[in-house]
Amino acid sequence: MTPPVFDAAAIERVATTDLVLDAVRDALIAHAKGQTTVPPPLHLQFPDADGDCHVKAGLVTGAHDFTVKIATGFYRNPAAGLSCQHGLVCVVSARTGQVRAILDDKGLLTSRRTAAAGALITHAMARPNAATLAVFGTGEQARLQVAWLAGLRPISTVLVHGRHPGRTRALCEEFTAQGHRARPASAEEAAGADMVLTTTPATSPVLQAVHVRPGTHVTGIGTDMPHKNELPPDLFARAALIATDDHEQCLDHGDFGHAVRAGATTATGDLPAGLLLDGPFARPDEAVTVADLTGVGALDAAVASAVLRELAR
Amino acid sequence: MTPPVFDAAAIERVATTDLVLDAVRDALIAHAKGQTTVPPPLHLQFPDADGDCHVKAGLVTGAHDFTVKIATGFYRNPAAGLSCQHGLVCVVSARTGQVRAILDDKGLLTSRRTAAAGALITHAMARPNAATLAVFGTGEQARLQVAWLAGLRPISTVLVHGRHPGRTRALCEEFTAQGHRARPASAEEAAGADMVLTTTPATSPVLQAVHVRPGTHVTGIGTDMPHKNELPPDLFARAALIATDDHEQCLDHGDFGHAVRAGATTATGDLPAGLLLDGPFARPDEAVTVADLTGVGALDAAVASAVLRELAR
Repeated sequence: MTPPVFDAAAIERVATTDLVLDAVRDALIAHAKGQTTVPPPLHLQFPDADGDCHVKAGLVTGAHDFTVKIATGFYRNPAAGLSCQHGLVCVVSARTGQVRAILDDKGLLTSRRTAAAGALITHAMARPNAATLAVFGTGEQARLQVAWLAGLRPISTVLVHGRHPGRTRALCEEFTAQGHRARPASAEEAAGADMVLTTTPATSPVLQAVHVRPGTHVTGIGTDMPHKNELPPDLFARAALIATDDHEQCLDHGDFGHAVRAGATTATGDLPAGLLLDGPFARPDEAVTVADLTGVGALDAAVASAVLRELAR
Repeated sequence: MTPPVFDAAAIERVATTDLVLDAVRDALIAHAKGQTTVPPPLHLQFPDADGDCHVKAGLVTGAHDFTVKIATGFYRNPAAGLSCQHGLVCVVSARTGQVRAILDDKGLLTSRRTAAAGALITHAMARPNAATLAVFGTGEQARLQVAWLAGLRPISTVLVHGRHPGRTRALCEEFTAQGHRARPASAEEAAGADMVLTTTPATSPVLQAVHVRPGTHVTGIGTDMPHKNELPPDLFARAALIATDDHEQCLDHGDFGHAVRAGATTATGDLPAGLLLDGPFARPDEAVTVADLTGVGALDAAVASAVLRELAR
């Protein structure tokens, strides 16, 4: 018998916001407590086709399943009418090694777990009365981060900073249609919001630390490879609290690593993001806080397991 | 549309000896010439279930496809009536990143490419008139290596050395039924054959270098993790020619690495196995030669690509 393959439509039906938030919260906490296994990812580059492939595996200790996720990005695909992103998730029994199912999710679960992690950590680290939200970038994660965070706390205004004025305006219109007050903003104005989320593939910082106000929380989710960099080192120097979703990964290829290499903070200057989800913590009102999220394989495992549990009902 | 899943029976029909030998020969040669991409494998351990998972990716430069292979070994499965080995091969387009197919081969292709690599290299490196073959181990690879090598050259006698007398006798009977002259042998006698193949999961050497005669060729295929070790370092010290299927892998977790760390040979003392398949080479009749094969992801890619080409006909 070959393992069942579930398509994106079936997966989307069961991968509800509540299911993904619960799975990601639990997995981040488990990861912070060392109750996960996340081997270094496997990478392949395809320079001739402007493509890359990442393979991530993850396991939450004691879980029935683990996952191996294949994610490709081939950036000339749109010219041929194809999506850039492809891949799938194999769910494997941690008891027998049998492949239980293949989730042909077209990247849906990665998008949702990234949105969930960003929203959960931003909500946990921002001041309770933080109300204005700025998002850098106009892609899928800009949309998702705003939507998922708005599900966790009220947002008074959404400021959007993008490189392309047309896309920026269009995204503001989408947010407005969803009931938000939203408008385009300069990088300087956006950096002055109560909560700042960066969701870009930038290779140099998208904001200046001097424009970030006391009491602000900043979450960067775009820096997932060594050549990328969204947040400036001196923002980390100012931060009273730095959270990373995975210490080693963020050191290797996150904004935290850039800051450490620039001497703006020490290599032990971060806390595991999941710890901040595991109960209340003291946050000085005037403190600047920063979260660097690079994506953890254990989150994929937790979400895929939860999805498969629903699909198998 | 979800990618098609092909089962082991469909794959077995098209993965003929000729198809696998051709694909493996070409891939070993390409690998020796640096025309492949093989990132370091990803490993997961499951100590509670006595299990492990290896994920290997590979690409032959210029090929249409690459592969990501998931292979698990859960060694308590037989008690539950299950096979130890599970896994599958994802064939992905190297042009678009789309998953083209899933080969649910139950380890069949790995077994066959391992058999092909062992047989090709042993045939290429043994003296032309080498006739007696000893095999250490009584598992699937012991069977396959003998069968595939016998397809490439005549074998006068097969000596089998195993830890379990019953299994050793049973394997000899199988070989006899296939038309071979076969009998159990001590480690000392087996090490004295013209061609020696080791196919065990041993963690300490299965033969002594002093029992290996001038002119003998030895191929080790069982050492695929750092704690495993089939061939003694002093065999490498005696060898006039050492071939490795992948220099870095063999240095990291092959018998070659054990020999280098023991000071029996230098870290640059090996040649790429594929070079020896790419035309005749001078082999002194009295020389001892050794091949250390750890399994290369590019071979998986080549075999899976060739299989998918046939399945898609």
